[in-house]
Amino acid sequence: MNNNEAIRILVTGGTFDKEYDMIHGKLHFEETHVPEMLQLGRCRLDIEVRTIMMIDSLDMTDADRASILHQCKQSSESKIVITHGTDTMSETGAYLAKENLDKTIILTGAMIPYKFGSSDGFFNLGSALAFVQTLPVGVYVVMNGRYYDWDNVRKNNKTGYFEELRES
Amino acid sequence: MNNNEAIRILVTGGTFDKEYDMIHGKLHFEETHVPEMLQLGRCRLDIEVRTIMMIDSLDMTDADRASILHQCKQSSESKIVITHGTDTMSETGAYLAKENLDKTIILTGAMIPYKFGSSDGFFNLGSALAFVQTLPVGVYVVMNGRYYDWDNVRKNNKTGYFEELRES
Amino acid sequence: MNNNEAIRILVTGGTFDKEYDMIHGKLHFEETHVPEMLQLGRCRLDIEVRTIMMIDSLDMTDADRASILHQCKQSSESKIVITHGTDTMSETGAYLAKENLDKTIILTGAMIPYKFGSSDGFFNLGSALAFVQTLPVGVYVVMNGRYYDWDNVRKNNKTGYFEELRES
Amino acid sequence: MNNNEAIRILVTGGTFDKEYDMIHGKLHFEETHVPEMLQLGRCRLDIEVRTIMMIDSLDMTDADRASILHQCKQSSESKIVITHGTDTMSETGAYLAKENLDKTIILTGAMIPYKFGSSDGFFNLGSALAFVQTLPVGVYVVMNGRYYDWDNVRKNNKTGYFEELRES
Repeated sequence: MNNNEAIRILVTGGTFDKEYDMIHGKLHFEETHVPEMLQLGRCRLDIEVRTIMMIDSLDMTDADRASILHQCKQSSESKIVITHGTDTMSETGAYLAKENLDKTIILTGAMIPYKFGSSDGFFNLGSALAFVQTLPVGVYVVMNGRYYDWDNVRKNNKTGYFEELRES
Repeated sequence: MNNNEAIRILVTGGTFDKEYDMIHGKLHFEETHVPEMLQLGRCRLDIEVRTIMMIDSLDMTDADRASILHQCKQSSESKIVITHGTDTMSETGAYLAKENLDKTIILTGAMIPYKFGSSDGFFNLGSALAFVQTLPVGVYVVMNGRYYDWDNVRKNNKTGYFEELRES
Repeated sequence: MNNNEAIRILVTGGTFDKEYDMIHGKLHFEETHVPEMLQLGRCRLDIEVRTIMMIDSLDMTDADRASILHQCKQSSESKIVITHGTDTMSETGAYLAKENLDKTIILTGAMIPYKFGSSDGFFNLGSALAFVQTLPVGVYVVMNGRYYDWDNVRKNNKTGYFEELRES
Repeated sequence: MNNNEAIRILVTGGTFDKEYDMIHGKLHFEETHVPEMLQLGRCRLDIEVRTIMMIDSLDMTDADRASILHQCKQSSESKIVITHGTDTMSETGAYLAKENLDKTIILTGAMIPYKFGSSDGFFNLGSALAFVQTLPVGVYVVMNGRYYDWDNVRKNNKTGYFEELRES
């Protein structure tokens, strides 16, 4: 196993990249924080970051998912991390899995925006980048320090933790 | 592969856990921050954290390394992450590797203390915990988003980045 | 001038104390952060903190303002800092000023929530506590490192900065 | 009282501006953080920042103090804040007070470096800037939310808090 293969990160928005808009007193999107997080993590992987969209995953349509799938197909890298809102990660996972791409694709995100000081996003990015280097071809969700097969995960909306649908 | 096997974290100190001692104006050790980091990362892995020592890795002796090895042997978990100062990670890696334990052992740390706001430690902990779940039996160093075989890594003291000794 | 007179802080909410509710993905109020800020600031003033309400200042009614006024009157301390949303600070200031209380009353707040890492709130709390010790009896707004007389200030909704209505 | 008079900030170093040098694993000085703090505090005062030296106050000599005094005399602003290590603030205060300058001079600092996430420095800067606008001509130390006359203050080296020498 070559341990420094190229990785692509596809940014789609989600809580991960939300910021506080002080003029309107609301959460909104500006630029992604992924490059600054890679620098802070002193990351030395060969990574290409591409922002596809900056949206809440509850607003994600099938056209948006088609666009993500297109980017996964087009990517010259066979290892792909997608930053994504937590609410519809498994829908997007199912959408991508139908194509049986010969790539390792990981969906990750955050429960608390990266810019809010106490976010899980930096930890999740670290584990997603490690899992994408080591897991076999397939589509996975990475949250809470774990990886989940795309067809065996749901977000528990009461606790905010991810769970398997069936015993492993 | 069962994706929620028990993991042991052995804490030895290092920059990772250094804090600012405001009375003496120096860096020192108090308690480890690993449990608070796992909580912030919303980590749901089955992890046992054990503090063995709280020292600078430049001060680590062979007696200290014997103690770390003893803990690795004793551990009922076969997946072990050791938080460690960056300066002598590869020495400790070599010491542990001699025993050929049937375990996946990962040494990780930080270039900047976790408590200092701009640390790489949280990212490194995320990737170390992912790698320990997926890499085969062996001893590794995890820094900069990558894993390195224990006998193929050195810290570049000029840049603070880790490097392979030979081409992969 | 005695330089350690008792001070009362009245908490009313505002951006200052907003937090991220990760289950619903929205901003909301929990507890005030004022006591933790005083501790972080290593503050040694004789301060009594009282939470009156935890609301957005755009939702503040005259009944709420009557309650704030009541608390100002009742307070045994003659130096009072009120944490308040920035949108209606001057309305509340005008409401309180009508009573001509023999007290120094300061309204302060933040443009970015304290918990979001890059907040002005901690700086504003430091300056509000200093101004309340040194300004004569009256009602003031403290933002942007400055104090403004209650009848000579407005928030510029385009820039988020406070401005005087007339030349000083 | 004109409430937006020009203020000069003289930077001398101290814990306030210390950073972590990851290559050598020690604390050191780079650039001052005062301008970035003023921006974060959304400060709209008319301030001129001048770095005179970047040293630990335990290393401060009479030649250094002569240089600070010279800058205070030269300053066209009559309101001056000096950021300074906490260990010898009162020595420098005494040195400056001998000259009886017709200016309000405030020494402030921090017990924990600004860059370390949990610093008192941002709070202290907010209160120092407020006190310098409102206190009469004289030399003061501002720490812990309070101001102290230069000849009535000492740092308690056991607790890290500042104390008056005699009852106020």
